[in-house]
Amino acid sequence: MSGIISTSCWSAANADLVLTNGYVLTMNQDKTVYPHGTVVIKGNKIIAVGDKSLATQYQAKQTMDVDGDIIMPGLINTHTHVSMTVFRSLADDVPDRLHRYIFPLEAKLVSRDMVRIGANLGNVEMVKGGVTTYADMYYFEDEVAKTVDKIGMRAVLGESVIKFPVADAKNADEGINYALKFINEYRNHPRITPAFAPHAPYTNTTETLQKVAKLSEQENVPVLIHLAETDREQQVIAERSNGLSPVQYMKSIGALNSHVVAAHMILVDDKDIETAKQADIGVAHNMSANIKAAKGVAPALKMYDQGLRIGLGTDGPMSGNTLSIIDELNQVAKVHKLVNHDRAAMPPIKVVDMATMGGARALHMEDKIGSLEIGKLADLIVIDTKAPNMVPMYNPYSALVYSANSANVKDSIVDGKLIMKDRVMLTVDEDQIRKEALDYTEIVKDTVIKSGEKVL
Amino acid sequence: MSGIISTSCWSAANADLVLTNGYVLTMNQDKTVYPHGTVVIKGNKIIAVGDKSLATQYQAKQTMDVDGDIIMPGLINTHTHVSMTVFRSLADDVPDRLHRYIFPLEAKLVSRDMVRIGANLGNVEMVKGGVTTYADMYYFEDEVAKTVDKIGMRAVLGESVIKFPVADAKNADEGINYALKFINEYRNHPRITPAFAPHAPYTNTTETLQKVAKLSEQENVPVLIHLAETDREQQVIAERSNGLSPVQYMKSIGALNSHVVAAHMILVDDKDIETAKQADIGVAHNMSANIKAAKGVAPALKMYDQGLRIGLGTDGPMSGNTLSIIDELNQVAKVHKLVNHDRAAMPPIKVVDMATMGGARALHMEDKIGSLEIGKLADLIVIDTKAPNMVPMYNPYSALVYSANSANVKDSIVDGKLIMKDRVMLTVDEDQIRKEALDYTEIVKDTVIKSGEKVL
Repeated sequence: MSGIISTSCWSAANADLVLTNGYVLTMNQDKTVYPHGTVVIKGNKIIAVGDKSLATQYQAKQTMDVDGDIIMPGLINTHTHVSMTVFRSLADDVPDRLHRYIFPLEAKLVSRDMVRIGANLGNVEMVKGGVTTYADMYYFEDEVAKTVDKIGMRAVLGESVIKFPVADAKNADEGINYALKFINEYRNHPRITPAFAPHAPYTNTTETLQKVAKLSEQENVPVLIHLAETDREQQVIAERSNGLSPVQYMKSIGALNSHVVAAHMILVDDKDIETAKQADIGVAHNMSANIKAAKGVAPALKMYDQGLRIGLGTDGPMSGNTLSIIDELNQVAKVHKLVNHDRAAMPPIKVVDMATMGGARALHMEDKIGSLEIGKLADLIVIDTKAPNMVPMYNPYSALVYSANSANVKDSIVDGKLIMKDRVMLTVDEDQIRKEALDYTEIVKDTVIKSGEKVL
Repeated sequence: MSGIISTSCWSAANADLVLTNGYVLTMNQDKTVYPHGTVVIKGNKIIAVGDKSLATQYQAKQTMDVDGDIIMPGLINTHTHVSMTVFRSLADDVPDRLHRYIFPLEAKLVSRDMVRIGANLGNVEMVKGGVTTYADMYYFEDEVAKTVDKIGMRAVLGESVIKFPVADAKNADEGINYALKFINEYRNHPRITPAFAPHAPYTNTTETLQKVAKLSEQENVPVLIHLAETDREQQVIAERSNGLSPVQYMKSIGALNSHVVAAHMILVDDKDIETAKQADIGVAHNMSANIKAAKGVAPALKMYDQGLRIGLGTDGPMSGNTLSIIDELNQVAKVHKLVNHDRAAMPPIKVVDMATMGGARALHMEDKIGSLEIGKLADLIVIDTKAPNMVPMYNPYSALVYSANSANVKDSIVDGKLIMKDRVMLTVDEDQIRKEALDYTEIVKDTVIKSGEKVL
């Protein structure tokens, strides 16, 4: 398998899909760019990336001339709760919202139906926003898995483990068992990585966190967890651990292994960052959701510069409230400039790197996805460069970060298959998905109205 | 002229355009919402706003059933430099960018052609981003005026006055004369308000600022100015005025009259805010551009709560980098929560109010635009509520602020005329405009390459 094929070859090599005439951002180690580039796909893999001349060397079943648009790796959403789309725009900005509002709402409404309906809607939103891979933490993840399988995306799906009764488990042990069953079912899926998702340190016991850590090594699966996110968490953990920070507590109990993908990491100091790096954990940076909740800004620039595995996440649609990583880029770039008092801080190329290779590294999937390189899985997107907000484009990273929005994503290819073309979904019925979601909102409205909460 | 017409009328009243079946956000004083609402337009004015039943009372030349989509006042961009679109994505994040980079670039390139080409592109971007009225500060504003006239938008166009030689004037006095000529030419245009635009206090002499203030009263036109924006400005003005802040200096020289629309107002204290309120000036809050340049966050929430005339602006496309107010809402809501350490701060309804009535008040046009009320000019937009990011919509203000992006703007009506329908521009040729802009970028690239600056 090689991208270097002599142009004097008598017959062209075979390929399944060739994208030509694109402004190719490879996001490889050297950040190689081909302003008039070609990407060649065979099966589910990239077999060549290069300039214009490459296109003539392949005989492809399908060729897409993208007319100067950007071709880049699919974006990676390292943290969300996709099914919560059905609750989006409810009770925004309510103080102590998670405990006072979201947990009670979920106790009443989380079900297989709700999880499926919400995930279907969120998946479409993510594909339309350039996301090809996401990491999810929720309940009934086997239902989410079915929606991911159907739409053709890639995902790391973490089944929740939490100490209080939830819709699919009475306690943490039942959650672990649910997760184990899910893991066994999806262990060999080509696009789905099943995982444990202990909600957070403060919503689980030390014993549960230790048990999950051990199992993650036995099963060789990720552990998705909220970590160093809130003042309440910090306080509870300090009381439990004789003053340790959440990160140091996780280390002290042996639960900070390299399977961990920690969402948020806002309340971390330099020692915590060093500990996270030594433990080789992944980090999901959720700027837009974190500032919406006034939780603060994670030191993501420092973590990135120190070589941590850090990607971008949207958090759930009650938090962010969108699931499109491309709409996150602008805020990530700008808010870090603000808090660092430096207009040169967090330049666009770092932001795009976090949204692609950074996300792949955070999920420990950097050998498979995150860049356009020979041998990698063919997960890529095409970005419209003709929309007025994208004209002109002296610098493609600036255009992506400071100008682009989700509507500029034109095409999406995952695992070598085209799943969106010219913004039309090819694998699912978008209208039907919206209709199901809207029907479900009537149930949500009834429940909220009965609860007496003034949040509608 | 009345919206209350008895349903027992034998014949329906005449109208030109009726929008029905919309989720109408009036943004009037009471923030009246009609979830199944109607807006009736005759000529260039709104003649009725109400619920479903209203539609049956009018015989309209054209009726648009918007199928549940949001109908709201057109967004107002209170501060930009529209023609600079041709420079977008050049030299982002360069320290001391304005003086080291932008002014020299402009000295080489600003021309009638550049102003026209850039304005055409920016106008399209703004319409596609929901903006119906904008305030511009630049050179050759008579060229901008022609583009505004053609596309059918509404604008306040400020001709620059600055102490050093620029493309259309050798000095401030020539700038004033250029502005006076422009003001005379456009004084009676139905959609264009000509104005003075002294660049900033520190780039003009005290005498010039006083002269402009006097002329603004004589001519009864706005004065657009950058104010309390940068550390350099603060320092220069303090040296000039024995330690005064930019706002206090402007007051002290008699240049802070009610014609002023001050962009930025970042470096203001409580006394400055009180002074600005007493002077009844308008304020343009440019969140996204200000944080990109790490300039800080203007105390916009305090100014809003204290009743100042404050609207939202994007700043120019080298600053923001987009011109779409709808893409500004998210950051305005979230960054104010962050800096106020309060998730309940800057709720969506205040943000939408700033983007509509706030903008109208900032431009002293609140009797004409900014809300959907009987007798106001018919400037309104329709927002898609079926895009996946907009589903569901328990709270329309939350959906607009936290979820919407410019691509969700479907239709735009200005002065009673449909100028965009289903995202297709009706009054200008978008492809031709893009082509002209792309051709012009070759001139920009040549100039930049010759300058030896490494910014491409």
